Amino acid sequence: MTETRTIAFVLYPGLTALDFVGPLQVISALKEFGLGFEAVTVAAAREPLQTDTSLSVTASHTFEQVPAPYGLIVPGGGVPTFTALADEQLTDYVRQAARSAEVVASVCTGSLILGSAGLLEGREATTHWAAMPILRAFGATPVSRRWVVDGRVLTAAGVAAGIDMALHLAGELVGEDAARMIQATIEYDPQPPFGPIDWDRVDRGFMESWIRSAAEKGLADHPELLARLAMADGAQSMSP
Amino acid sequence: MTETRTIAFVLYPGLTALDFVGPLQVISALKEFGLGFEAVTVAAAREPLQTDTSLSVTASHTFEQVPAPYGLIVPGGGVPTFTALADEQLTDYVRQAARSAEVVASVCTGSLILGSAGLLEGREATTHWAAMPILRAFGATPVSRRWVVDGRVLTAAGVAAGIDMALHLAGELVGEDAARMIQATIEYDPQPPFGPIDWDRVDRGFMESWIRSAAEKGLADHPELLARLAMADGAQSMSP
Repeated sequence: MTETRTIAFVLYPGLTALDFVGPLQVISALKEFGLGFEAVTVAAAREPLQTDTSLSVTASHTFEQVPAPYGLIVPGGGVPTFTALADEQLTDYVRQAARSAEVVASVCTGSLILGSAGLLEGREATTHWAAMPILRAFGATPVSRRWVVDGRVLTAAGVAAGIDMALHLAGELVGEDAARMIQATIEYDPQPPFGPIDWDRVDRGFMESWIRSAAEKGLADHPELLARLAMADGAQSMSP
Repeated sequence: MTETRTIAFVLYPGLTALDFVGPLQVISALKEFGLGFEAVTVAAAREPLQTDTSLSVTASHTFEQVPAPYGLIVPGGGVPTFTALADEQLTDYVRQAARSAEVVASVCTGSLILGSAGLLEGREATTHWAAMPILRAFGATPVSRRWVVDGRVLTAAGVAAGIDMALHLAGELVGEDAARMIQATIEYDPQPPFGPIDWDRVDRGFMESWIRSAAEKGLADHPELLARLAMADGAQSMSP
């Protein structure tokens, strides 16, 4: 009988709820089906944390309780995720837990936290479409894909992309048949009412300036880190 | 200046996290974009509730604080959702809040809670694919679609279908352009790694017996309600 392997979802104040709940639902099913993995949620303390919605969430474990998980998944968000880039307790945990992890993953701007922890140097990675250029600040090469695999580092695009990435990861961990069973269980058979995103109709400037503003607000007390992000972006704009 | 209209997500112990976090993320964006709606989460008390994952969640409001929302969205789950069918405090709230609501919605087996509150009588509705026949116990006609609209009652299929339903609802509330903007913001551009669900490969019997067992466990103390569900299902099986 092999030991249950733990995949830890890293929570912090203000994060985007769907960033982690999508993949958490997928990975949690591995335990339900008795497939040798368990999903836990970890945070600095086991106290309710406000998300970017009206929901507060409480982690199942503290960072101290899960020092060396098999896998680590870091979700993203807006202003609070930029603040988190300068949160040493958080980035120290991510760096330390990643040391022995077989899988180090992120969703959306969670990849910037991986970057801030020094884990993206020289790697291909992705993030929310409007934040792509910022990855360069951490030595990463931005790649526009739904999810990007570079060795043991797995990064997903924005928010909902975490579900696709988690199903890919489940397929890697326990095989395609089991991953398909999970997909059927959560009835992930997407039918977006207006079809796939029509990128020609997306107001990229709006979202890119929103991200820029989020970086400025979130790192108002850390001008050096903010300058590092802005430099990665070129002097004028964060647009690719 | 019109008043902000409230859409309430109903929480209860043991529910499926993605059932409500998917649509919550979509509907919460309406406020962020200043579109006249706010999403709140409601529960019997503002205390952490365990979900079906390692995550605990705390609602932003109690039932008493949101007696007459503009919209109501009820998520589903497994064993605890069947238990919830017999939870009078919950079903009373749903019935009362639905009275004046313009939109009454559910995700996954949340439609069974709508049914238990008497809100599906004579209506078309959907639910998780493995629970479809149970809808008949509440006088509803099961329809296999991603989401089903019958007057002001909107029901979504299993778990992840809540995201599609919420984008449809956003389109109805604030127009297609805004709904598309939300879709781009949460980067809901699905690319399931193994493609859409291949229904020919799904082990329907496994999931249907799982649901049957969940009903039996969840309603062990309520044999009359359990019998009502089983009768809807025919003597032998819950299969359609």
